[in-house]
This record gives sequence, structure tokens and C-alpha cells, in this order.
Amino acid sequence: MQIRKIEVCLTPALLPLYDISESIVVVIDIFRATSSICYGIENGVEAIIPVASVESCESYRHTDYLLAAERNGEVVEGFDFGNSPFAYSSEKVKGKTVVLTTTNGTHAINESREARQIIIGSFLNLTFLCNWLKTQPYDVLLLCAGWKNKFNLEDTLFAGAVVHQLSEEGYQQDDSSIAAEDLYIAGKSDLNEYLKKTSHSERLKKLGIEEDIRFCLNVDITNSIPVLEGDRLVKLIL
Amino acid sequence: MQIRKIEVCLTPALLPLYDISESIVVVIDIFRATSSICYGIENGVEAIIPVASVESCESYRHTDYLLAAERNGEVVEGFDFGNSPFAYSSEKVKGKTVVLTTTNGTHAINESREARQIIIGSFLNLTFLCNWLKTQPYDVLLLCAGWKNKFNLEDTLFAGAVVHQLSEEGYQQDDSSIAAEDLYIAGKSDLNEYLKKTSHSERLKKLGIEEDIRFCLNVDITNSIPVLEGDRLVKLIL
Repeated sequence: MQIRKIEVCLTPALLPLYDISESIVVVIDIFRATSSICYGIENGVEAIIPVASVESCESYRHTDYLLAAERNGEVVEGFDFGNSPFAYSSEKVKGKTVVLTTTNGTHAINESREARQIIIGSFLNLTFLCNWLKTQPYDVLLLCAGWKNKFNLEDTLFAGAVVHQLSEEGYQQDDSSIAAEDLYIAGKSDLNEYLKKTSHSERLKKLGIEEDIRFCLNVDITNSIPVLEGDRLVKLIL
Repeated sequence: MQIRKIEVCLTPALLPLYDISESIVVVIDIFRATSSICYGIENGVEAIIPVASVESCESYRHTDYLLAAERNGEVVEGFDFGNSPFAYSSEKVKGKTVVLTTTNGTHAINESREARQIIIGSFLNLTFLCNWLKTQPYDVLLLCAGWKNKFNLEDTLFAGAVVHQLSEEGYQQDDSSIAAEDLYIAGKSDLNEYLKKTSHSERLKKLGIEEDIRFCLNVDITNSIPVLEGDRLVKLIL
């Protein structure tokens, strides 16, 4: 196998700088889109359709799909639910198709469509995801969804966790993957505590979703990888 | 004084996301443009004119200015010198005006022109710069020049060093300033050793400029701040 690269794209605004045509892109939006997607797929969602706008989501209104729309951390009025992982419990979503739009996560997915393959990562499926990546002969780009194209710490920390798990595999790292790994090492003993100092965490707290945040920092509670097939996220068949 | 913000813009590609009209922007290109600028200003350069292109630099050919042009780490053919701090010794530059174009640093300066004030930072003037910032009632944006709009570690580490020195001043931090500070803390005991793992350092080594790199990591060897006045970098009068 030739030497693979592992790179971290710190925000979607930087994605045009990378050639992703031969790469696996892992989309990361820890609070909360990709955590919710991982949880939903694990709980038997048939498919999640990520769409860019609230209007696109609305256009599925008269179907039997569930409609999920979040903007600025809140459920958009008139929608079934938003971005909370607790909305994706087995009872609520098993066998269903969900149409989802979020402030950052679905934007990042849509920006990545040139990639060889797009998969979804979160702390929930960290090790399962990493073990699968190890078996793949392709470069990896870890794409942090950030917050409105700005850097955020929680997505970068997760990217660092992936880099850390793959550190013995001989991937060639770029500066941002080195930085992400070192930040993960700085924060890993207590992710929740470490992330308390971030502005984003403060904003999410004001929204009363501290339970969501704690849930999204659960490591390795799922064993599935959401993958984009066409315009749908489904469970990757191994 | 109202609460000031300190933010880190990790690459010039992200600068449009920040409102810098009321901010002091500190431009950072550790290897080597802003280190060289700090060293030149300390050594009595009258002014440094940062220009975007090699052609602009060339247009000053028949003046008594010194012409400095660097691309991809090397002196452009036909120019007096490039980006090495050793070209900015007192004997060579005292009383002279230098026209400078570099791959990343002068680009970052030019992108910042909307700022209230643009100053130049490097490890060479770290503490002097920080002590001055403390006296200013304005927000601070630390702008990392990066490498062709991608993130790099050395510029971010320096940004983190500034955040660290200002950490008792009550600035409001964003996620990237938190991350930069933690990376600086991880690397500060031996910056040279820490940065050896970066790709950029590897590339610069191949160019045979390891001495430049070591020089650019000297902390607090100068006591001046280059500031942009009109289209010229001059010594800030305190």
C-alpha cells in the first residue's frame, strides 16, 4: 500500500484548498449533527437525507418522511425535530427516512460531494470508524463542520482523536492533523471539562441542551458508519 | 475599558469571516517574513513596502530601494534578496527602504487593510508587542499567514504565545485562540524540537535554511513593533 495521507480541514471554508477526489472524507459536527446522524443510523433509521436549506427540507412536507431542521442551535418552527440526538431514539426513527438540515453539518456534507466517499464521524462511533479506515487504501480528510465556517474546538478534538487512533498506521500528517492530535491529547482525559471553556459550549448551554452535549461526548457507544449513497446517508455495509 | 476580544484567524482564507474594522491585526508569518521584518525594523530599515506580486516588486527596479522577493521559500532570480532574516542585518539595511514580496506574509498584510491598525509580530518581538497590546483598548486579531492559505503550526504557536501572555488581561477568547494557546503550551519548552514534526519545517530544511529557522525562534531579541502606515511598514513610535 502506498503512503496514505491524513489531513484535517479545520472548516468548510478551507475545503477548496484540498483535492478530495481520491479521498475518504469524514464529516464531523460533534455538537450535534453528526452525533445525531450516527445515533440515528445505529437505531435503525433507513436513511437520512441531508439538505442545504430549510426550504429544501420543507419541500418534503407531504411525504411520510420525518422533517428535521435546526438553525442556530434551535428547532425551526413547524418541524418535527432539530438536531438533538435524543430525537433519534429507536422508537422514534426505526425504519423511517429523515430529511435533515442543520446550520453547519449538512453544509459540510454538501460541500464534500466531490469526494471518493463521504462518511460520518462522531465520538459515538470513533473506534469503529477508525478500525474501518485502517482497512482502506485511501487518503483521509477529516472535515470539521465548525461554526458558520469558523474553527471550533470540539470538531477539531474529534479529528485529533481519529488521527491519534491511526497514528501507528504510517499515514503522512499535515500541520492541522498534528495540531488536532495534540489538542486531543490535551483534552482527552476529560473532554466535557476541556470543552467547557469554549464559546460554542457556552452558547449551547444557554439553549438548555447540556444533556445533548454530554451525550455527544460518549465514546464508542455505536458500531455503525453512516455513508452517503447518492443523496442519502445510510448504514455502511461491511 | 469594555471587554476586549482576542481572536486567532488561522489562515488568510478565513479573514472575510471577521470584522476587523475596529481591531488591531497582528500579522504572523514566523518562517520567515514577519521575523525578517521585525529584525529589519529593529536594525534601522527606514521602511519596508510589502507588495503582493513579484511584478510590483520589479516595478521599483530603478530606484534606490532594495528589492526582496521570495516564492516557495527561495529568492526569486534577479532580486537582491528574499526572506532570510540574515539579509536584514544592520550593515545591509540601515537607513534603506526595502520593497518586499513573499509567498504568504505580504499577502496576509495586504488582506488586512480594513483593520484599524496592522502590526507585525514574531518571536523576536513577542513580549515587547504583548506589553504594547495590553495598553490598547481595542480588540486583537492574530492573523496567521499560513502556507498558501492552509493552516500552519508555527504561526499558530506564535499566536498562542501572544494569547498566553495576555491571558491575565481579561480578553474574551474564541475557540481558535483557546486552541492556539494550548498548542503553544504543548510546544513552548522547546519550540524548535516541537516544530520539527511539521511538514513546513521539513520543506524549509530541504531549502538549506535551518539556520534561518533557528533564528526565527529566538524569543525577545528585539524591542520594536513594525506598523503599517499607508503602504509602508515603519517602526511604531511609542
